Amino acid sequence: MLSGMADPVEFYFDFSSPYGYLASHQIEAIAARHGREVRWRPYLLGVAFKETGQKPLVEQPLRGPYHQHDFARSARRLGLPFRLPSPFPFAGVAPSRAFYWLEERDGALAKRFALKTYDRIFGEGRSVNDAAAVADVAVSLGVDSAALVAGINDAAIKDKLRAETEAAIKRGVFGSPFIYVDGEPFWGHDRLGQVEEWLARGGW
Amino acid sequence: MLSGMADPVEFYFDFSSPYGYLASHQIEAIAARHGREVRWRPYLLGVAFKETGQKPLVEQPLRGPYHQHDFARSARRLGLPFRLPSPFPFAGVAPSRAFYWLEERDGALAKRFALKTYDRIFGEGRSVNDAAAVADVAVSLGVDSAALVAGINDAAIKDKLRAETEAAIKRGVFGSPFIYVDGEPFWGHDRLGQVEEWLARGGW
Repeated sequence: MLSGMADPVEFYFDFSSPYGYLASHQIEAIAARHGREVRWRPYLLGVAFKETGQKPLVEQPLRGPYHQHDFARSARRLGLPFRLPSPFPFAGVAPSRAFYWLEERDGALAKRFALKTYDRIFGEGRSVNDAAAVADVAVSLGVDSAALVAGINDAAIKDKLRAETEAAIKRGVFGSPFIYVDGEPFWGHDRLGQVEEWLARGGW
Repeated sequence: MLSGMADPVEFYFDFSSPYGYLASHQIEAIAARHGREVRWRPYLLGVAFKETGQKPLVEQPLRGPYHQHDFARSARRLGLPFRLPSPFPFAGVAPSRAFYWLEERDGALAKRFALKTYDRIFGEGRSVNDAAAVADVAVSLGVDSAALVAGINDAAIKDKLRAETEAAIKRGVFGSPFIYVDGEPFWGHDRLGQVEEWLARGGW
Protein backbone atom coordinates (compact mmCIF):
# COMPACT_ATOMS: atom_id res chain seq x y z
CA MET A 1 0.00 0.00 0.00
CA LEU A 2 1.26 3.50 -0.76
CA SER A 3 1.91 5.26 2.53
CA GLY A 4 -0.04 8.24 1.26
CA MET A 5 -3.13 6.06 1.09
CA ALA A 6 -2.87 4.61 4.60
CA ASP A 7 -5.51 5.74 7.05
CA PRO A 8 -4.46 7.85 10.03
CA VAL A 9 -4.02 6.32 13.47
CA GLU A 10 -6.97 7.45 15.59
CA PHE A 11 -6.05 8.67 19.05
CA TYR A 12 -8.92 9.11 21.53
CA PHE A 13 -8.12 10.75 24.86
CA ASP A 14 -9.56 12.75 27.73
CA PHE A 15 -7.68 15.82 28.98
CA SER A 16 -8.08 14.56 32.57
CA SER A 17 -6.22 11.31 31.79
CA PRO A 18 -2.59 10.93 32.92
CA TYR A 19 -2.12 7.97 30.58
CA GLY A 20 -3.47 10.11 27.74
CA TYR A 21 -0.78 12.70 28.58
CA LEU A 22 1.93 10.04 28.38
CA ALA A 23 0.58 8.72 25.06
CA SER A 24 0.34 12.24 23.61
CA HIS A 25 4.14 12.41 23.76
CA GLN A 26 4.63 9.14 21.87
CA ILE A 27 1.81 8.62 19.38
CA GLU A 28 3.01 10.95 16.61
CA ALA A 29 6.49 9.41 16.51
CA ILE A 30 5.06 5.87 16.50
CA ALA A 31 2.73 6.68 13.60
CA ALA A 32 5.41 8.60 11.67
CA ARG A 33 7.78 5.61 11.80
CA HIS A 34 5.16 3.74 9.76
CA GLY A 35 4.20 6.53 7.37
CA ARG A 36 0.99 7.34 9.20
CA GLU A 37 -0.60 10.52 10.45
CA VAL A 38 -2.55 10.77 13.71
CA ARG A 39 -6.12 11.96 14.12
CA TRP A 40 -6.46 13.38 17.65
CA ARG A 41 -9.91 12.94 19.18
CA PRO A 42 -10.47 14.41 22.64
CA TYR A 43 -13.71 13.17 24.18
CA LEU A 44 -15.39 13.08 27.59
CA LEU A 45 -14.41 9.87 29.37
CA GLY A 46 -16.99 10.55 32.08
CA VAL A 47 -19.76 9.93 29.55
CA ALA A 48 -18.23 6.55 28.72
CA PHE A 49 -18.05 5.79 32.45
CA LYS A 50 -21.82 6.14 32.61
CA GLU A 51 -22.03 3.26 30.11
CA THR A 52 -19.37 1.04 31.65
CA GLY A 53 -20.15 1.75 35.30
CA GLN A 54 -16.53 2.73 35.92
CA LYS A 55 -15.40 5.50 38.26
CA PRO A 56 -12.23 7.60 38.07
CA LEU A 57 -9.24 5.44 39.01
CA VAL A 58 -8.08 7.52 41.95
CA GLU A 59 -11.49 7.18 43.62
CA GLN A 60 -11.30 3.38 43.68
CA PRO A 61 -9.99 1.41 46.68
CA LEU A 62 -6.75 -0.50 45.93
CA ARG A 63 -6.76 0.64 42.28
CA GLY A 64 -6.42 4.31 43.24
CA PRO A 65 -3.14 4.01 45.18
CA TYR A 66 -1.69 1.66 42.56
CA HIS A 67 -2.43 4.03 39.71
CA GLN A 68 -1.18 7.10 41.56
CA HIS A 69 2.10 5.22 41.95
CA ASP A 70 1.99 4.03 38.35
CA PHE A 71 1.28 7.47 36.84
CA ALA A 72 4.57 8.76 38.26
CA ARG A 73 6.51 5.57 37.56
CA SER A 74 5.33 5.49 33.93
CA ALA A 75 6.23 9.15 33.40
CA ARG A 76 9.67 8.64 34.96
CA ARG A 77 10.33 5.74 32.62
CA LEU A 78 9.66 8.04 29.66
CA GLY A 79 11.66 10.93 31.09
CA LEU A 80 8.52 13.08 31.34
CA PRO A 81 7.73 15.35 34.29
CA PHE A 82 4.62 14.41 36.24
CA ARG A 83 2.49 16.27 38.75
CA LEU A 84 -1.15 15.54 39.49
CA PRO A 85 -3.20 18.78 39.22
CA SER A 86 -5.79 19.86 41.74
CA PRO A 87 -8.66 19.28 41.31
CA PHE A 88 -8.18 15.81 39.86
CA PRO A 89 -10.00 14.32 38.08
CA PHE A 90 -11.70 17.24 36.35
CA ALA A 91 -14.09 17.61 33.42
CA GLY A 92 -12.14 18.19 30.21
CA VAL A 93 -14.98 20.11 28.55
CA ALA A 94 -13.24 23.48 28.06
CA PRO A 95 -9.94 22.21 26.54
CA SER A 96 -11.82 19.67 24.39
CA ARG A 97 -14.07 22.36 22.95
CA ALA A 98 -11.03 24.58 22.38
CA PHE A 99 -9.33 21.74 20.51
CA TYR A 100 -12.23 21.29 18.11
CA TRP A 101 -12.58 25.04 17.58
CA LEU A 102 -8.88 25.27 16.74
CA GLU A 103 -8.97 22.14 14.56
CA GLU A 104 -11.53 23.76 12.27
CA ARG A 105 -8.99 26.54 11.69
CA ASP A 106 -5.60 24.77 11.80
CA GLY A 107 -5.21 21.06 12.49
CA ALA A 108 -1.52 21.26 13.40
CA LEU A 109 -2.19 24.14 15.78
CA ALA A 110 -4.92 22.12 17.50
CA LYS A 111 -2.43 19.32 18.16
CA ARG A 112 0.14 21.77 19.54
CA PHE A 113 -2.59 23.15 21.79
CA ALA A 114 -3.47 19.67 23.04
CA LEU A 115 0.14 18.82 23.81
CA LYS A 116 0.77 22.13 25.56
CA THR A 117 -2.45 21.73 27.56
CA TYR A 118 -1.45 18.22 28.64
CA ASP A 119 2.03 19.46 29.60
CA ARG A 120 0.57 22.21 31.72
CA ILE A 121 -1.89 19.83 33.41
CA PHE A 122 0.31 16.82 34.11
CA GLY A 123 3.81 18.16 33.53
CA GLU A 124 3.30 21.23 35.73
CA GLY A 125 0.27 20.12 37.75
CA ARG A 126 -1.77 23.22 36.81
CA SER A 127 -5.51 23.11 36.10
CA VAL A 128 -6.72 23.75 32.56
CA ASN A 129 -10.41 23.19 33.07
CA ASP A 130 -12.05 26.54 32.34
CA ALA A 131 -12.16 29.12 29.59
CA ALA A 132 -9.57 31.42 31.18
CA ALA A 133 -6.99 28.66 31.60
CA VAL A 134 -7.65 27.37 28.10
CA ALA A 135 -7.24 30.85 26.67
CA ASP A 136 -3.97 31.27 28.55
CA VAL A 137 -2.53 28.19 26.81
CA ALA A 138 -3.89 29.26 23.43
CA VAL A 139 -2.53 32.79 23.68
CA SER A 140 0.97 31.39 24.16
CA LEU A 141 0.49 29.75 20.75
CA GLY A 142 -0.54 33.02 19.11
CA VAL A 143 -4.30 32.47 19.23
CA ASP A 144 -6.64 35.40 19.80
CA SER A 145 -8.02 34.99 23.29
CA ALA A 146 -11.42 36.62 22.79
CA ALA A 147 -12.11 34.66 19.61
CA LEU A 148 -11.22 31.39 21.34
CA VAL A 149 -13.41 32.08 24.37
CA ALA A 150 -16.31 32.99 22.08
CA GLY A 151 -15.60 29.83 20.10
CA ILE A 152 -15.78 27.45 23.03
CA ASN A 153 -19.10 28.97 24.06
CA ASP A 154 -20.52 28.60 20.59
CA ALA A 155 -23.43 26.14 20.28
CA ALA A 156 -21.87 24.50 17.22
CA ILE A 157 -18.67 23.66 19.15
CA LYS A 158 -20.66 22.35 22.09
CA ASP A 159 -22.56 20.11 19.67
CA LYS A 160 -19.30 19.05 18.04
CA LEU A 161 -17.81 17.76 21.32
CA ARG A 162 -21.07 16.04 22.20
CA ALA A 163 -21.20 14.36 18.79
CA GLU A 164 -17.54 13.28 18.93
CA THR A 165 -18.05 11.80 22.40
CA GLU A 166 -21.20 9.95 21.34
CA ALA A 167 -19.54 8.65 18.17
CA ALA A 168 -16.52 7.46 20.14
CA ILE A 169 -18.63 5.52 22.64
CA LYS A 170 -20.86 4.10 19.92
CA ARG A 171 -17.72 2.82 18.25
CA GLY A 172 -16.54 1.10 21.43
CA VAL A 173 -14.19 3.64 23.03
CA PHE A 174 -14.26 3.44 26.85
CA GLY A 175 -10.84 4.56 28.10
CA SER A 176 -7.97 7.00 27.56
CA PRO A 177 -5.86 6.60 25.58
CA PHE A 178 -7.84 4.46 23.16
CA ILE A 179 -6.29 3.94 19.75
CA TYR A 180 -7.47 2.48 16.46
CA VAL A 181 -5.12 1.23 13.77
CA ASP A 182 -7.10 0.36 10.62
CA GLY A 183 -10.14 -0.35 12.77
CA GLU A 184 -8.26 -2.47 15.33
CA PRO A 185 -8.82 -1.16 18.90
CA PHE A 186 -6.10 -0.81 21.53
CA TRP A 187 -6.90 0.43 25.01
CA GLY A 188 -4.30 1.88 27.30
CA HIS A 189 -0.92 3.56 27.32
CA ASP A 190 0.74 0.21 27.97
CA ARG A 191 -0.52 -1.02 24.60
CA LEU A 192 1.53 1.44 22.54
CA GLY A 193 4.05 -1.33 21.89
CA GLN A 194 1.29 -3.41 20.34
CA VAL A 195 0.04 -0.40 18.38
CA GLU A 196 3.50 -0.10 16.82
CA GLU A 197 3.68 -3.85 16.22
CA TRP A 198 0.28 -3.78 14.46
CA LEU A 199 1.45 -0.89 12.29
CA ALA A 200 4.64 -2.76 11.40
CA ARG A 201 3.09 -6.19 10.77
CA GLY A 202 -0.41 -5.23 9.67
CA GLY A 203 -1.88 -7.50 12.32
CA TRP A 204 -1.13 -10.94 13.69
CA MET B 1 23.95 -9.08 44.74
CA LEU B 2 24.39 -12.84 44.49
CA SER B 3 21.58 -14.25 42.37
CA GLY B 4 21.03 -16.90 45.01
CA MET B 5 20.06 -14.15 47.42
CA ALA B 6 17.55 -12.40 45.17
CA ASP B 7 13.92 -12.66 46.23
CA PRO B 8 11.49 -14.55 44.03
CA VAL B 9 9.15 -12.75 41.67
CA GLU B 10 5.66 -12.99 43.16
CA PHE B 11 2.95 -13.96 40.70
CA TYR B 12 -0.66 -13.49 41.86
CA PHE B 13 -3.39 -14.87 39.64
CA ASP B 14 -6.95 -16.17 39.56
CA PHE B 15 -7.71 -19.39 37.70
CA SER B 16 -10.67 -17.68 35.99
CA SER B 17 -8.41 -15.00 34.45
CA PRO B 18 -7.49 -15.25 30.75
CA TYR B 19 -4.66 -12.76 31.24
CA GLY B 20 -3.38 -14.88 34.13
CA TYR B 21 -3.28 -17.85 31.73
CA LEU B 22 -1.21 -15.85 29.24
CA ALA B 23 1.18 -14.69 31.97
CA SER B 24 1.54 -18.24 33.35
CA HIS B 25 3.27 -19.18 30.10
CA GLN B 26 5.78 -16.34 30.29
CA ILE B 27 6.59 -15.52 33.91
CA GLU B 28 9.02 -18.37 34.65
CA ALA B 29 11.17 -17.60 31.59
CA ILE B 30 11.21 -13.88 32.37
CA ALA B 31 12.32 -14.51 35.95
CA ALA B 32 14.87 -17.16 34.95
CA ARG B 33 16.57 -14.75 32.54
CA HIS B 34 17.37 -12.63 35.58
CA GLY B 35 18.31 -15.41 37.98
CA ARG B 36 15.01 -15.32 39.81
CA GLU B 37 12.51 -17.91 40.87
CA VAL B 38 8.75 -17.34 40.83
CA ARG B 39 6.39 -17.71 43.76
CA TRP B 40 2.95 -18.61 42.34
CA ARG B 41 0.04 -17.29 44.38
CA PRO B 42 -3.48 -18.19 43.23
CA TYR B 43 -6.13 -16.12 44.98
CA LEU B 44 -9.80 -15.27 44.59
CA LEU B 45 -10.15 -12.16 42.44
CA GLY B 46 -13.86 -11.96 43.26
CA VAL B 47 -12.98 -11.08 46.86
CA ALA B 48 -10.81 -8.21 45.61
CA PHE B 49 -13.69 -7.07 43.39
CA LYS B 50 -15.79 -6.60 46.53
CA GLU B 51 -13.18 -4.06 47.68
CA THR B 52 -12.69 -2.28 44.37
CA GLY B 53 -16.30 -2.39 43.19
CA GLN B 54 -15.23 -4.02 39.93
CA LYS B 55 -17.21 -6.67 38.08
CA PRO B 56 -15.91 -9.39 35.75
CA LEU B 57 -14.75 -7.81 32.48
CA VAL B 58 -17.09 -9.72 30.19
CA GLU B 59 -20.12 -8.49 32.15
CA GLN B 60 -19.28 -4.82 31.52
CA PRO B 61 -20.74 -2.86 28.60
CA LEU B 62 -18.10 -1.76 26.05
CA ARG B 63 -15.28 -3.28 28.10
CA GLY B 64 -16.68 -6.82 27.75
CA PRO B 65 -16.62 -6.99 23.93
CA TYR B 66 -13.19 -5.32 23.82
CA HIS B 67 -11.66 -7.79 26.23
CA GLN B 68 -13.25 -10.82 24.56
CA HIS B 69 -11.54 -9.63 21.37
CA ASP B 70 -8.32 -8.87 23.23
CA PHE B 71 -8.11 -12.24 25.02
CA ALA B 72 -7.95 -14.02 21.66
CA ARG B 73 -5.73 -11.41 20.03
CA SER B 74 -3.24 -11.51 22.91
CA ALA B 75 -3.12 -15.32 22.87
CA ARG B 76 -2.62 -15.36 19.10
CA ARG B 77 0.29 -12.95 19.43
CA LEU B 78 1.98 -15.39 21.83
CA GLY B 79 1.14 -18.43 19.72
CA LEU B 80 -1.05 -19.86 22.49
CA PRO B 81 -4.41 -21.55 21.87
CA PHE B 82 -7.40 -19.77 23.36
CA ARG B 83 -10.97 -20.82 24.03
CA LEU B 84 -13.24 -19.28 26.64
CA PRO B 85 -14.71 -22.02 28.88
CA SER B 86 -18.35 -22.24 29.86
CA PRO B 87 -19.30 -21.11 32.42
CA PHE B 88 -17.10 -18.01 32.37
CA PRO B 89 -16.21 -16.40 34.67
CA PHE B 90 -16.22 -19.07 37.35
CA ALA B 91 -15.03 -19.27 40.96
CA GLY B 92 -11.46 -20.60 41.08
CA VAL B 93 -11.88 -22.07 44.57
CA ALA B 94 -11.30 -25.76 43.76
CA PRO B 95 -8.13 -25.41 41.64
CA SER B 96 -6.72 -22.80 44.06
CA ARG B 97 -7.17 -25.11 47.03
CA ALA B 98 -5.66 -27.96 45.04
CA PHE B 99 -2.66 -25.78 44.24
CA TYR B 100 -1.98 -25.02 47.92
CA TRP B 101 -2.50 -28.65 48.92
CA LEU B 102 0.01 -29.74 46.27
CA GLU B 103 2.44 -26.95 47.12
CA GLU B 104 2.78 -28.25 50.68
CA ARG B 105 3.94 -31.55 49.17
CA ASP B 106 5.91 -30.54 46.06
CA GLY B 107 6.31 -26.93 44.93
CA ALA B 108 7.34 -27.81 41.37
CA LEU B 109 4.39 -30.18 41.02
CA ALA B 110 2.00 -27.44 42.18
CA LYS B 111 3.27 -25.16 39.38
CA ARG B 112 2.87 -27.91 36.80
CA PHE B 113 -0.66 -28.42 38.06
CA ALA B 114 -1.42 -24.70 37.75
CA LEU B 115 -0.10 -24.56 34.19
CA LYS B 116 -1.95 -27.69 33.12
CA THR B 117 -5.14 -26.40 34.74
CA TYR B 118 -4.82 -23.09 32.91
CA ASP B 119 -4.16 -24.89 29.62
CA ARG B 120 -7.23 -27.01 30.06
CA ILE B 121 -9.40 -23.99 30.95
CA PHE B 122 -8.26 -21.44 28.38
CA GLY B 123 -6.31 -23.56 25.91
CA GLU B 124 -9.06 -26.17 25.54
CA GLY B 125 -12.04 -24.22 26.88
CA ARG B 126 -12.91 -26.91 29.47
CA SER B 127 -14.15 -26.11 32.97
CA VAL B 128 -11.91 -26.88 35.94
CA ASN B 129 -14.06 -25.49 38.69
CA ASP B 130 -14.97 -28.48 40.87
CA ALA B 131 -13.23 -31.30 42.72
CA ALA B 132 -13.77 -33.87 39.97
CA ALA B 133 -12.27 -31.69 37.25
CA VAL B 134 -9.36 -30.69 39.50
CA ALA B 135 -8.69 -34.35 40.34
CA ASP B 136 -8.73 -35.22 36.64
CA VAL B 137 -5.91 -32.73 35.98
CA ALA B 138 -3.96 -33.88 39.03
CA VAL B 139 -4.24 -37.57 38.18
CA SER B 140 -2.61 -36.87 34.81
CA LEU B 141 0.37 -35.58 36.83
CA GLY B 142 0.54 -38.74 38.94
CA VAL B 143 -1.30 -37.38 41.97
CA ASP B 144 -3.56 -39.68 44.00
CA SER B 145 -7.11 -38.59 43.26
CA ALA B 146 -8.72 -39.54 46.59
CA ALA B 147 -5.98 -37.85 48.61
CA LEU B 148 -6.30 -34.64 46.55
CA VAL B 149 -10.08 -34.51 46.88
CA ALA B 150 -9.79 -35.06 50.64
CA GLY B 151 -7.11 -32.35 50.70
CA ILE B 152 -9.17 -29.67 49.01
CA ASN B 153 -12.00 -30.34 51.46
CA ASP B 154 -9.70 -30.07 54.45
CA ALA B 155 -10.38 -27.12 56.75
CA ALA B 156 -6.70 -26.21 56.85
CA ILE B 157 -6.55 -25.85 53.05
CA LYS B 158 -9.74 -23.80 53.01
CA ASP B 159 -8.18 -21.53 55.63
CA LYS B 160 -4.97 -21.35 53.61
CA LEU B 161 -6.71 -20.05 50.47
CA ARG B 162 -8.73 -17.61 52.55
CA ALA B 163 -5.55 -16.34 54.26
CA GLU B 164 -3.63 -16.03 50.97
CA THR B 165 -6.50 -14.08 49.42
CA GLU B 166 -6.78 -11.75 52.40
CA ALA B 167 -3.02 -11.22 52.50
CA ALA B 168 -2.92 -10.45 48.79
CA ILE B 169 -5.67 -7.85 49.02
CA LYS B 170 -4.19 -6.32 52.17
CA ARG B 171 -0.96 -5.94 50.24
CA GLY B 172 -2.69 -4.13 47.37
CA VAL B 173 -3.41 -6.90 44.86
CA PHE B 174 -6.61 -6.24 42.90
CA GLY B 175 -6.18 -7.90 39.48
CA SER B 176 -4.83 -10.91 37.64
CA PRO B 177 -2.03 -11.23 36.85
CA PHE B 178 -0.51 -9.01 39.55
CA ILE B 179 3.23 -9.24 39.98
CA TYR B 180 5.72 -7.95 42.53
CA VAL B 181 9.41 -7.55 41.82
CA ASP B 182 11.26 -6.67 45.04
CA GLY B 183 8.08 -5.08 46.40
CA GLU B 184 7.32 -3.13 43.21
CA PRO B 185 3.76 -3.85 41.95
CA PHE B 186 2.83 -4.44 38.32
CA TRP B 187 -0.76 -5.08 37.30
CA GLY B 188 -1.69 -6.78 34.08
CA HIS B 189 -0.39 -9.11 31.42
CA ASP B 190 0.59 -6.13 29.30
CA ARG B 191 3.08 -5.08 31.99
CA LEU B 192 5.31 -8.13 31.64
CA GLY B 193 7.68 -6.05 29.53
CA GLN B 194 8.06 -3.62 32.43
CA VAL B 195 8.44 -6.53 34.87
CA GLU B 196 11.41 -7.71 32.82
CA GLU B 197 12.79 -4.19 32.54
CA TRP B 198 12.56 -3.75 36.31
CA LEU B 199 14.37 -7.05 36.84
CA ALA B 200 17.11 -6.01 34.40
CA ARG B 201 17.58 -2.44 35.63
CA GLY B 202 16.57 -2.76 39.27
CA GLY B 203 14.07 0.07 38.83
CA TRP B 204 14.02 3.44 37.08
